[in-house]
Amino acid sequence: MRNRVYLDWNATTPLRAEARRAMLAAWDLVGNPSSVHAEGREARRLVEEARATLAGAVGALPRNVVFTSAGTEANALALSPGLRRSSGGPAVERLLVSAVEHASVLTGGRFAADKIGLIPVMRSGVVDLDHLRSLLGDGPPALVSVMAANNETGALQPVAEVARIVHEAGGLLHVDAIQALGKIPFQIKDMGADLATFSAHKVGGPKGVGALAMAEGLTGLDPLLRGGGQELNRRAGTENIAGIAGFGAAVKAALQALSEDAEQMATLRNQLENGIRGIAGATIFADEVRRLPNTVLFTAPGLKAETAVIGFDLEGIAVSSGSACSSGKVQPSHVLSAMGYDPAVAQGAVRLSLGWSTELDDINRALEAWRKLGNTLLKS
Amino acid sequence: MRNRVYLDWNATTPLRAEARRAMLAAWDLVGNPSSVHAEGREARRLVEEARATLAGAVGALPRNVVFTSAGTEANALALSPGLRRSSGGPAVERLLVSAVEHASVLTGGRFAADKIGLIPVMRSGVVDLDHLRSLLGDGPPALVSVMAANNETGALQPVAEVARIVHEAGGLLHVDAIQALGKIPFQIKDMGADLATFSAHKVGGPKGVGALAMAEGLTGLDPLLRGGGQELNRRAGTENIAGIAGFGAAVKAALQALSEDAEQMATLRNQLENGIRGIAGATIFADEVRRLPNTVLFTAPGLKAETAVIGFDLEGIAVSSGSACSSGKVQPSHVLSAMGYDPAVAQGAVRLSLGWSTELDDINRALEAWRKLGNTLLKS
Repeated sequence: MRNRVYLDWNATTPLRAEARRAMLAAWDLVGNPSSVHAEGREARRLVEEARATLAGAVGALPRNVVFTSAGTEANALALSPGLRRSSGGPAVERLLVSAVEHASVLTGGRFAADKIGLIPVMRSGVVDLDHLRSLLGDGPPALVSVMAANNETGALQPVAEVARIVHEAGGLLHVDAIQALGKIPFQIKDMGADLATFSAHKVGGPKGVGALAMAEGLTGLDPLLRGGGQELNRRAGTENIAGIAGFGAAVKAALQALSEDAEQMATLRNQLENGIRGIAGATIFADEVRRLPNTVLFTAPGLKAETAVIGFDLEGIAVSSGSACSSGKVQPSHVLSAMGYDPAVAQGAVRLSLGWSTELDDINRALEAWRKLGNTLLKS
Repeated sequence: MRNRVYLDWNATTPLRAEARRAMLAAWDLVGNPSSVHAEGREARRLVEEARATLAGAVGALPRNVVFTSAGTEANALALSPGLRRSSGGPAVERLLVSAVEHASVLTGGRFAADKIGLIPVMRSGVVDLDHLRSLLGDGPPALVSVMAANNETGALQPVAEVARIVHEAGGLLHVDAIQALGKIPFQIKDMGADLATFSAHKVGGPKGVGALAMAEGLTGLDPLLRGGGQELNRRAGTENIAGIAGFGAAVKAALQALSEDAEQMATLRNQLENGIRGIAGATIFADEVRRLPNTVLFTAPGLKAETAVIGFDLEGIAVSSGSACSSGKVQPSHVLSAMGYDPAVAQGAVRLSLGWSTELDDINRALEAWRKLGNTLLKS
């Protein structure tokens, strides 16, 4: 049997060798970072080293970085009523989220359901800035949440422009940068983000670690987990030390290789897209806007994502249908619905995502499989 | 330099070889357990295998076990207003917690501050059952939270008796069994617990993994993390797969060795206590009640815990002063305060905790250090 091809990197990014080494080293430390003795201090050092690495990578101060158990927890922590600038100004009282956010943002964190508003996106997948302006003008100070890059289409949002609009209206901006980290440059200051969230396993770190980074001068964050002084009282619970060390090592490796990896992924991605388009009348979603260098969401007339994913799987190729985050169920994509596609189209979208170790042979095998599937699945 | 001696096992339990092997194997799987393809299914299998192991170990059904990011998150998830039996009966409207609970329970989870009551403990450290009865009689249905074993003194609570009292009053019982798992037999059914919480690193699993187990027929649990269908919609977020696999392997190993380990720890613990008592007028807390086989909390007239912990550390022995969960700060123990000791005593308590690999030589070196410290620290 030939090797499996992984074109579901958003879900299955392998562990980087650097992360693996850091985690093995952490396992040999027995200290709890809250303990006073030598072992505790050494564990603390590992956590703080990873914090400094991530902070440097995203342009935050280490004291403004909080480690969490995943991107989902980081998003839930970020969406905190009461956030404000310590220099003065009102606290945010409501939340506006773009309609293409990840489910963990759409649920609205700690905001009550009647305090959450939806920012529509255009057919291209990009947030409607005029609509955002009018929403902001119509009510009390808002926290706005717009992702850097979409996990299904790869479409980038005009985050810096969103930030200007939000700040002019006296609001604050949260950016879910989980897909962006390690794939495109992302610095919270350049983007004007007041809060940004990240996930380790999307950059080749372990599953089950995330982080929230905040701009300097932000206050009022309401902890989600209480009952321990960890993470400067912003997140109680014994830290996942090995996981955090692995996150730090993965971020470091990902950032060092970023420009080279991104160029390679974009080249292969273009070859993949050109090939896909030529078969069974396939079209690529959000292809008129800037996207991540690694993500392709496509469909073809009559395609059913569930069948296609299984078909690719049987051909030895791991792919995904939109978000993988809904417990194994293939559901119509809320992202495509928000972009105005009808449910039949939204249920036919297949995502191929590339990683730093994707090779030309993987692309060729995916195209070969798609040629076969496109010619058999769509005939019946 | 001689090897370090670890008598701070509650905080620094080393990773078991079985957990290490399970985690290494999990690293080689690249699947997201929510993905449909073969890799996703294999990751799902690892998570479900660990769930079945933990469920079996604590007498729960696998479907009633929810993995979390640590004991702290498990406690926050468990303390959920609205819990009730699916067979009928009212939902709990308030929370009663024992005064010696871990900080993550004392904060009361999702209950409002004015809905949280404190159950006092007696000088022995055991909850005052008469007081509990009267608190339960005076108000709407309550969720009661009483830990199986205290993390500072090791004192066991009469959980089964507490359960009877709580259930007679129409309430529900949560048991923080984080210290108990792997040290004494703990089955939720035998104990009458409706909810129980566990932490991986206390049984030799990795840091940053915990779990909530519920009795069959409980409903109304309010998720803490939303926006993903994982853990049967009770805990969103990509799972810490390697960590969960390590937790399962550690629980299995801990349970297999439980009676042998407990007997060995109790023997060494008794030798340690007999030695300590003979030096500098030391006394052991909660020594008139049943305790864990591994935990010794002691003080001596004039002892300052902070100085003692550093003194032990310099002698090569890692020990702790009460809870390690307060970001490196040595604070007077709320547990000893609740037991009626005055702050001066509560600030002088040192904890020695043993593990499955503690040896007689460790005990002898600790006693040697205590002889030295007791004779120098207390003179000045």
